Amino acid sequence: MAVALTIIVDPNDPASRRSLTAAAGTTILKAAHAGGVDITATCGGRGRCTSCRVKFLTGAPPPPTIMDALQLGDDLVREGYRLSCQCVLHEPVIVQLAPPLEERAFQILGAGPGVHALGRVTLDSGVAKQVVKVNLPREEHHQTSDLEQLLAAVGLTADDVGPAVVQGLPQALRDDPAGVTVTTFAAGGRQRILAVERGDTAGMKFGLAIDVGTTSVVTTLIELESGEQLASVSSLNPQAVFGGDLMSRIAFAQFNPGNLRKLHTRIIGLLNQHIEQICRESGVLAKWIYKVVIVGNTCMHHILLGIDPSHVGLAPYAPVMRHAVILAARDLFLKVAPEARVCLLPLVAGFVGADAVGVALATRIYESAEIRVAVDIGTNGEVILGSRDHLWACSAPAGPALEGAQIRHGMRGALGAIDRVRVDDDVHVHTIGETDALGICGSGIIDLIAGLLDARVIDWTGLIQVEARDALPPKLAARVVMRGEERQVIVLRPGEAGARQEIVLTQDDVRQVQLAKGAIASGVAMLQHVAGVPAERVAELMLAGGFGNYLSIESALRIGLIPPLARARIRYVGNAASLGAQLCLVSEAERARADSVARRIEHVSLAAHPDFEQIFVDCMNFPRPA
Amino acid sequence: MAVALTIIVDPNDPASRRSLTAAAGTTILKAAHAGGVDITATCGGRGRCTSCRVKFLTGAPPPPTIMDALQLGDDLVREGYRLSCQCVLHEPVIVQLAPPLEERAFQILGAGPGVHALGRVTLDSGVAKQVVKVNLPREEHHQTSDLEQLLAAVGLTADDVGPAVVQGLPQALRDDPAGVTVTTFAAGGRQRILAVERGDTAGMKFGLAIDVGTTSVVTTLIELESGEQLASVSSLNPQAVFGGDLMSRIAFAQFNPGNLRKLHTRIIGLLNQHIEQICRESGVLAKWIYKVVIVGNTCMHHILLGIDPSHVGLAPYAPVMRHAVILAARDLFLKVAPEARVCLLPLVAGFVGADAVGVALATRIYESAEIRVAVDIGTNGEVILGSRDHLWACSAPAGPALEGAQIRHGMRGALGAIDRVRVDDDVHVHTIGETDALGICGSGIIDLIAGLLDARVIDWTGLIQVEARDALPPKLAARVVMRGEERQVIVLRPGEAGARQEIVLTQDDVRQVQLAKGAIASGVAMLQHVAGVPAERVAELMLAGGFGNYLSIESALRIGLIPPLARARIRYVGNAASLGAQLCLVSEAERARADSVARRIEHVSLAAHPDFEQIFVDCMNFPRPA
Repeated sequence: MAVALTIIVDPNDPASRRSLTAAAGTTILKAAHAGGVDITATCGGRGRCTSCRVKFLTGAPPPPTIMDALQLGDDLVREGYRLSCQCVLHEPVIVQLAPPLEERAFQILGAGPGVHALGRVTLDSGVAKQVVKVNLPREEHHQTSDLEQLLAAVGLTADDVGPAVVQGLPQALRDDPAGVTVTTFAAGGRQRILAVERGDTAGMKFGLAIDVGTTSVVTTLIELESGEQLASVSSLNPQAVFGGDLMSRIAFAQFNPGNLRKLHTRIIGLLNQHIEQICRESGVLAKWIYKVVIVGNTCMHHILLGIDPSHVGLAPYAPVMRHAVILAARDLFLKVAPEARVCLLPLVAGFVGADAVGVALATRIYESAEIRVAVDIGTNGEVILGSRDHLWACSAPAGPALEGAQIRHGMRGALGAIDRVRVDDDVHVHTIGETDALGICGSGIIDLIAGLLDARVIDWTGLIQVEARDALPPKLAARVVMRGEERQVIVLRPGEAGARQEIVLTQDDVRQVQLAKGAIASGVAMLQHVAGVPAERVAELMLAGGFGNYLSIESALRIGLIPPLARARIRYVGNAASLGAQLCLVSEAERARADSVARRIEHVSLAAHPDFEQIFVDCMNFPRPA
Repeated sequence: MAVALTIIVDPNDPASRRSLTAAAGTTILKAAHAGGVDITATCGGRGRCTSCRVKFLTGAPPPPTIMDALQLGDDLVREGYRLSCQCVLHEPVIVQLAPPLEERAFQILGAGPGVHALGRVTLDSGVAKQVVKVNLPREEHHQTSDLEQLLAAVGLTADDVGPAVVQGLPQALRDDPAGVTVTTFAAGGRQRILAVERGDTAGMKFGLAIDVGTTSVVTTLIELESGEQLASVSSLNPQAVFGGDLMSRIAFAQFNPGNLRKLHTRIIGLLNQHIEQICRESGVLAKWIYKVVIVGNTCMHHILLGIDPSHVGLAPYAPVMRHAVILAARDLFLKVAPEARVCLLPLVAGFVGADAVGVALATRIYESAEIRVAVDIGTNGEVILGSRDHLWACSAPAGPALEGAQIRHGMRGALGAIDRVRVDDDVHVHTIGETDALGICGSGIIDLIAGLLDARVIDWTGLIQVEARDALPPKLAARVVMRGEERQVIVLRPGEAGARQEIVLTQDDVRQVQLAKGAIASGVAMLQHVAGVPAERVAELMLAGGFGNYLSIESALRIGLIPPLARARIRYVGNAASLGAQLCLVSEAERARADSVARRIEHVSLAAHPDFEQIFVDCMNFPRPA
């Protein structure tokens, strides 16, 4: 029996509608391929990814398979999403092809330069694998055990074995004549067995560097032998639904113990989704991940460990603990090798966390002969100033605006985000992946405001110049509008750069950016003030952060995000917190260094300083044209 | 509105039926109390115990409350059991009062002599508590953390703190002006923080000794400062539904990985029930239990740790591991203090486990100048023979008969069990608690068979002498019957000693006892044989085991459970495996000694020995009258 199948490739394009017929009992994926409609099926139609998803527009969606539920989640299944590889045709249906998953989806970045960009890293992750043949006695009078025979073969003692290793031992030792592969982790002069796998798996040795930010979470998979970055996943921190900034999230945790648990399980759940996704895309098995290094601010760090962050939000803002921690992955319920070592870098103070330590490591500011400044821009950014002689740090709570959040049409730096803007007699945009524009990410917002300042669409106080728009070139003028009480700049009209809807910058968006850049600029100014370092003594300013894409330093200077240093003295260093985690992942020497660096950083509390308020107010304005 | 409530106190007694009326919306418990029916409510009607349970005979049982589910479990809830304190009356119902929970229930024994009976124990559990006041800085410029301030106060380092301790730290440090109580555990020269509690709880320091047997599990609560035994709970090992003896349980585990998980979760679940029960009865909070010592045979030990015991059941019967293990309670999901140390004693071989090490410790056989024998009778018993010069051990797989299992009217040594029997011209019984007889436990079975042998009701081959009964005294003769193909001795007729039903000893029961005592006696004989120790060189035989009640040595000699030594050279030492665990609980020196003792014991494999079969067959018979 033949069944009608209609596939809508692009709901905005009537011409993209394809009508097919297929034998009842065929999957939608097979029917589509047979009919010449190219549905992507990354996993080969095995229900292991979401690429072949369709949404039922007519016809009752079939009951979800277990793969539907696992891959798409309950919400999407309820909305009629299914995996076309799992869906068998029985009656005529109309489906939409691969509707976007938006913020629910992950962005997988390709392999980046990783730690090799930092040069001079001796690869020594502490994780080692060796293949051994273990002699099991065949006669009963030997008083021994599987574990003792294994330990004799590798020269270790029973203290150095985790319980999960012992559980799988009898099978591993008996299943493969090639022997077993023993994975160990060496730290602080001790070796510990992390895994015993049957056969020779010595080539499989991976680790994860994870940056848990207030707004974004970035997980990077690294091959430990080469230090090569294999893949990177980023997504929104799902805790954000309980409060966009740290203080509101702390208030939520304070409300009752169940809330802390909610925040904790959300982040653990997300990390496990990242692990699943990154393993699927890279073909690396999760059980081959033996080391994980995590950085994050103090609040994220505490929540990850299930520690109540309430008192981090109350004067004197003391953390509950600061030392570097090593846990077994099973203790955090992370779905990598159960005995994998999860290393959390140490903290400096309540608002200067392990992420700042990561930035210090990645920028090597701790060994600089001259005074340098590292600025990590994030919802809870930090500024570090100093040299090998002394390091100062303060928090710079910029809020999420520069990560594209709490901006009318803001978004993370994912496919379709406007990441570059040029303003001349009109507004010109570039999108990530050069695809249809969906919104604007941090680097795009900074470019946009810089361009609008130069074009005098925005004045130095941040006001959108609706009243003076007639002085602008006509195309630009037409973008400056007053809608009700709201001043707006129309960045894209529907159809421009493939935008499906209007994308605007509102007066309030500009104010959010002013608050953000004010926090950062005043942090830099205050550290210079406290340390007694005038601008001319700053040898270099290193700008770090996860803007989604590379930031234009010219634009950052133009909006006053950073102090007016010579362009040559400013460098963009990428997501330095994550790079610091990657360094500690591939090098135990760097991880040991994290302790000494954390102890050397002196925390400067801005709010307590009498001069702070005036400096902050000054930094909120944009620099006046020279 | 009034509702009719009928309560049946004793289903065998029509006069016990009570008809009441009560206002709709009242709980059954309140209605019963108002109507003069005395339902026990140990917890005060708060749903925290099972004492007020009723069973619905007519009327639909109301949906179970969470308390019903927690206290009674799914099976009983399905059978119509409810807690009367939770059950609101809406329609006429007939309920039976407190139907017995039988083997599902726990037996709580009163305080016993515990380790003090062993003399010469230096109390040093390793667990210490100290009250400290921790100085929290009030000013922001101090770079410190809660944990660092605490560690400074007690002089420890961050390596020695478990994650669960850190989680509760901020509250504990701020809630009580009296300070906090820090619990530490010292072992092997290192101290570790187990808990930080607000206020002064220095007097609260408890531990558990747990003996996980194939058939029975015994948990003992001990006050660590005094070594005093506060309470003891015993119950059947719930794994028994998956196989009564070790080999069938190993076969079950081999069948698929889910089965191992089932066995594992059953025993962990039971231990948590024990903990809940023992804490409720003693008033000790579970969070005050900081140390747990567990003994068990190799198979029980492996299953408890989630280790596949398959290969313990296959030649050469090697364990997966043998060393002493210390885990955090949270790792085993035991509901005591999360960081409590759970110590498993070391193993000797596949069938000589940590329980044998416990017996060796409790009997102090390792320091004896003369040769002694320790016999631990259990489903998987062990025999240890030797002195301070050399120790041999073998397994003696008696099966569960001597623990009252797999016997027609057998039961554990709980209230109502026949524990003593005297046979003259009739059969006379004593029951535990001197209450109505419900069945017969191990010590009663041994007494009974010994008496029947002396009275010539049973001959030396074990046959019940139905054909020769006319030669017996008339009352005794009337108890010896043939029913169908089955020979039986009627121990009690309904009404005798309060028995509600007939209690008999069957021919098959006698055979089970013969197999059991044959296994043990041949174990002793074989060790003597291998070690070259004739009976006259055995200075003492120490008989251990959980028979439910104290065993009569005369009866044990009469049935040939133990070799025919002079009565003065035989001593009953109680549940020595559990006592060994208690020793290690109250003394770290004893726990350290367990390692050296385990290493010194030489395992003798009986089945491999050419002389074993003949010895075993000989030992199956009862000793002939002199």
